[in-house]
Amino acid sequence: MSIVEFTPNREQYAYTFGGVAPVMHIKPGSVLRLWSEDAFNHALTSVDDLSSEKVDLRYVNPQTGPFYVEGAEQGDTLAIHIVELTPARTWGASATIPFFGGLTGTDRTVNLQDALPDTTWIYEVDMDRNTVGFQARFGDFEVELPMAPMLGTVGVAPPGGEVRSSLVPERFGGNMDTPEMRAGTTVFLGVNQEGALFSLGDGHYRQGEGEACGTAVEGAMNSTIIVELIKGHAPAWPRLENDECWMAVGSSRPMEDSWRIAQVEMVRWYQELFDLHQMDSYQLLSQTAEVPVANVVDANYSIVVKTQKALVPDVDAFGGIHSELRNRARQMK
Amino acid sequence: MSIVEFTPNREQYAYTFGGVAPVMHIKPGSVLRLWSEDAFNHALTSVDDLSSEKVDLRYVNPQTGPFYVEGAEQGDTLAIHIVELTPARTWGASATIPFFGGLTGTDRTVNLQDALPDTTWIYEVDMDRNTVGFQARFGDFEVELPMAPMLGTVGVAPPGGEVRSSLVPERFGGNMDTPEMRAGTTVFLGVNQEGALFSLGDGHYRQGEGEACGTAVEGAMNSTIIVELIKGHAPAWPRLENDECWMAVGSSRPMEDSWRIAQVEMVRWYQELFDLHQMDSYQLLSQTAEVPVANVVDANYSIVVKTQKALVPDVDAFGGIHSELRNRARQMK
Amino acid sequence: MSIVEFTPNREQYAYTFGGVAPVMHIKPGSVLRLWSEDAFNHALTSVDDLSSEKVDLRYVNPQTGPFYVEGAEQGDTLAIHIVELTPARTWGASATIPFFGGLTGTDRTVNLQDALPDTTWIYEVDMDRNTVGFQARFGDFEVELPMAPMLGTVGVAPPGGEVRSSLVPERFGGNMDTPEMRAGTTVFLGVNQEGALFSLGDGHYRQGEGEACGTAVEGAMNSTIIVELIKGHAPAWPRLENDECWMAVGSSRPMEDSWRIAQVEMVRWYQELFDLHQMDSYQLLSQTAEVPVANVVDANYSIVVKTQKALVPDVDAFGGIHSELRNRARQMK
Amino acid sequence: MSIVEFTPNREQYAYTFGGVAPVMHIKPGSVLRLWSEDAFNHALTSVDDLSSEKVDLRYVNPQTGPFYVEGAEQGDTLAIHIVELTPARTWGASATIPFFGGLTGTDRTVNLQDALPDTTWIYEVDMDRNTVGFQARFGDFEVELPMAPMLGTVGVAPPGGEVRSSLVPERFGGNMDTPEMRAGTTVFLGVNQEGALFSLGDGHYRQGEGEACGTAVEGAMNSTIIVELIKGHAPAWPRLENDECWMAVGSSRPMEDSWRIAQVEMVRWYQELFDLHQMDSYQLLSQTAEVPVANVVDANYSIVVKTQKALVPDVDAFGGIHSELRNRARQMK
Repeated sequence: MSIVEFTPNREQYAYTFGGVAPVMHIKPGSVLRLWSEDAFNHALTSVDDLSSEKVDLRYVNPQTGPFYVEGAEQGDTLAIHIVELTPARTWGASATIPFFGGLTGTDRTVNLQDALPDTTWIYEVDMDRNTVGFQARFGDFEVELPMAPMLGTVGVAPPGGEVRSSLVPERFGGNMDTPEMRAGTTVFLGVNQEGALFSLGDGHYRQGEGEACGTAVEGAMNSTIIVELIKGHAPAWPRLENDECWMAVGSSRPMEDSWRIAQVEMVRWYQELFDLHQMDSYQLLSQTAEVPVANVVDANYSIVVKTQKALVPDVDAFGGIHSELRNRARQMK
Repeated sequence: MSIVEFTPNREQYAYTFGGVAPVMHIKPGSVLRLWSEDAFNHALTSVDDLSSEKVDLRYVNPQTGPFYVEGAEQGDTLAIHIVELTPARTWGASATIPFFGGLTGTDRTVNLQDALPDTTWIYEVDMDRNTVGFQARFGDFEVELPMAPMLGTVGVAPPGGEVRSSLVPERFGGNMDTPEMRAGTTVFLGVNQEGALFSLGDGHYRQGEGEACGTAVEGAMNSTIIVELIKGHAPAWPRLENDECWMAVGSSRPMEDSWRIAQVEMVRWYQELFDLHQMDSYQLLSQTAEVPVANVVDANYSIVVKTQKALVPDVDAFGGIHSELRNRARQMK
Repeated sequence: MSIVEFTPNREQYAYTFGGVAPVMHIKPGSVLRLWSEDAFNHALTSVDDLSSEKVDLRYVNPQTGPFYVEGAEQGDTLAIHIVELTPARTWGASATIPFFGGLTGTDRTVNLQDALPDTTWIYEVDMDRNTVGFQARFGDFEVELPMAPMLGTVGVAPPGGEVRSSLVPERFGGNMDTPEMRAGTTVFLGVNQEGALFSLGDGHYRQGEGEACGTAVEGAMNSTIIVELIKGHAPAWPRLENDECWMAVGSSRPMEDSWRIAQVEMVRWYQELFDLHQMDSYQLLSQTAEVPVANVVDANYSIVVKTQKALVPDVDAFGGIHSELRNRARQMK
Repeated sequence: MSIVEFTPNREQYAYTFGGVAPVMHIKPGSVLRLWSEDAFNHALTSVDDLSSEKVDLRYVNPQTGPFYVEGAEQGDTLAIHIVELTPARTWGASATIPFFGGLTGTDRTVNLQDALPDTTWIYEVDMDRNTVGFQARFGDFEVELPMAPMLGTVGVAPPGGEVRSSLVPERFGGNMDTPEMRAGTTVFLGVNQEGALFSLGDGHYRQGEGEACGTAVEGAMNSTIIVELIKGHAPAWPRLENDECWMAVGSSRPMEDSWRIAQVEMVRWYQELFDLHQMDSYQLLSQTAEVPVANVVDANYSIVVKTQKALVPDVDAFGGIHSELRNRARQMK
């Protein structure tokens, strides 16, 4: 098995989904080892680096990619299996960027109040203990938190010729910022343009659900993924699968719309998986769904609707491709 | 230890928080064994009972209570510990009430489309296997789901002389519809009126997060609770604690406001628990929060913000009262 | 024609819709001359009075009433025609109450930012010129604005035994804060409880649409109204009529739901007025509606959907009662 | 004065803001006479044409443009004055596209209900009487409505390299769908890319505020405009001016965010126009704003905040350019 390794140089970073020429063509079935820069574009390296001075908001969430998947056409389904995510630096950064985040006015929920203090936190990575260290900026409090690597951003080129910032989560995936995007997960994305043109980035060493302050423990990441192509069967919105769960992600505003989207996507998936009538699917999901919020801070809010496989009969989704990819991943180790 | 047992008769059901004379005065520290009717007021007993014909929406979510807690004054904190929840019937019911629920137009998100089919599901309870049985209404699909008893509704009289329907979740608790309201949980509610005047009801044998179709597996419930009073320290919004987690519940519209409320309540709690500056609390919570949606179907939407105690230093909330109540609960068994 | 005059004393002020004994029984057809206190309960009388120090938020929007209308039963329609609104003081007050208003965080859209400066403005009334005078608090700018008296609050007792704060706009009317509630307007409210139990207050000498800062030019008001009762025909949400327009008011959250409510209420009204199919009514209203925002600062946001009578065929609403009331009003002058 | 006339052929239609090569370079000060196709791309020409069969949603709102304005750079302000709008056909069309519009579930506010009936209305234009004729599709009702031509869509290329569908209203203008975009109005848009790259289309012969059913009386339009360039001074969001009013347009979700955006943009504008402190500007606008809803049906909802010049001191905005353009427009007639 050949593995494609790729570390972009600064000039190759993409800041949008769509609108960028592919960095590489790959074949379905390829294994990729990708390096991605952190969401701040390496602008915050100490607590003295203030986001208002150092971060250029035109150049955040730099993407590694896009990759052109041979044979991918509109209506197909791209399956990306995350084999492994490993921090590529010994520290991560977080910050309260002025007028960005969930508990402050923003450019949308705009108000006339003063901004919150522009503050930066640096988390030291301890690879042996598999932790990141929180240190208070306004006191002595310290605590080690478990490492929990995830990708904030995985997406394909949008439909209709649109080009969207890498800060946006939408139908095409993008900046969904869900902790579910971790090693062991397969994400299914509908293909909108020839070649799919997927990219990834925005590695988080750890993130709470909601990403309340607007940023996670942001860090450069090494990602190992397997990319597969399913002809047809494009879901309307991103679907995820791991060994325990099926999930759908909705991203819109207000947040109840994100929820409605993810919930309906999951109603549809239940109908397919179990050959159910819409009303029975709606009922069954109502009693079995878990609903963890993903982000409440991006251009769209993202909600995950999730179901434990253990609760329902044993069936295969997308022809059982997740199991196959898991097997391939295991053999790589 | 004396235990107060109470089963209301039909004339004693309360349909509001506030505005109702107490059924009983109790002392802080009392143990109560309460029976509550199901949310449909026993109107749906077979799949042939249609909610549009049988359910009177003026008389749903019948409450057991209110109870007057001696010594409770405005600004105090009522702590209700749920010792045990046991189904009081051998079946539960769920229904898609026309223009009620999350994936249909409602009286608020009103539209001109036809209603979804008015459908009733009956779930058989198997106490030995500890399950409820889902049976499709439009096909042969069946599946047993784990029993997971919870209370949809726990609340006190509202502030400012308001009286609210038992369908409403708000500052005063009420119809929060979170699966976290289960045995082993202590809920902390700010007291607004003399005597607190708490009531409970809306037992669910099982509910998915969000309660998407508008109703859970609704059933009459036997609840054993311990009621304690803390002088002062009223939280702004309901707080919950179990052995693993601290939680806050926000209930408003749109859903991002529910989230903001719960998130800020938890930021404040972190500040108290760990003596943190607001900004450090915001940061730490951003990286540690879990955010399960509770309901997206009631008069207000409810969101839980939750933190695992294992992630942070070992401290006591509300003077360690949850541990004490857990001990008392264990001794009862 | 007998006229009922009523000026409440402080002990008679009502702070809720519902939950208060009537101050008086009146017969349908009565003319009332009512005095109402300002929304701040007379707490702000100079620019040095700060709302955070002087205003007790439990006692704002004091209502004059409630009045028990003889013969009014659930399902009836109360028609209140506003004959005349006259400032009862020579000055009005406005203020930016901390964490209250549209361009600041609130108890719902809560954030961690500092409050805006707590500021009070006093507007001098010039009855000859029919103006109120704006004077900048942070500079020398002055401008006279036309007087435009309106009532922020007109409502009946809520359904289902609820009691709501006089800050709330809802199905039952209440704190809708629309400049359309001025002399010459008839408001139609569905009756929920015997006697209807209507009250009014929150006089504004002038208010912009949206009431952005949270308060209008608040002032004590003399209101002359005629109260009529229509048996049956209760609208689902408040409807308004003046000589030029028909209107419906929706009050909920998020604001698109307020709009949906008012729009559907108006679709229904078009169907009744012109004997239209729902789809034709929807289409015709889509091309003829005016949609002025009323408030974006109260417990619910209020939106008015309005249609110019001149655009559509000449028909009578509610049996032509608005014209009759206008005639009676003219004869009074 | 030379006038640039331009009628695109089908291959020249643009369906996005950004991402399209300019059809023409023009100099600041140019007068343009532009023809634009209707929003349905001429797919609905009789009531028997159903939108679900005839309308291709990838090709709606065809834009005339984009035009490259010489000398326009990021941070500049494009001023487009609408001299005249004249229907280019003798009929307009409207339709209730399935799952599109304000009183139905959509792809965002998604539900499980059946779609509303897919219905098309054709409005005959009477140029002599200056009216469009509504004819009920489910009955005999007819009414003539005044012609009120406007442009649904005027926009420039977005910032950050984004490309957005011509269905989207945003910071860059776009599909704002406000009746204020009529002859006599000047719209000010911040320039994001070299050449500004503005386009227009989506002519409406008439539209109610909110555009409730999702479509106006859609028609091909002849637009005469004057295009000017102001160096610097880019507003954050679109501003409009006519002889009577200043206006700002906010476009986001939920609708209260659209309102906050427009309100803050207008607070800023008041500060500039009258040299006011932020708090005084907030207060003065709160008592003088008019707030007509523009659309509640597009990818973002749009709200206009508007102020009558007659209420406030006489000052010039953007150096008085609106008056100059009005003069030039008058001289053309």
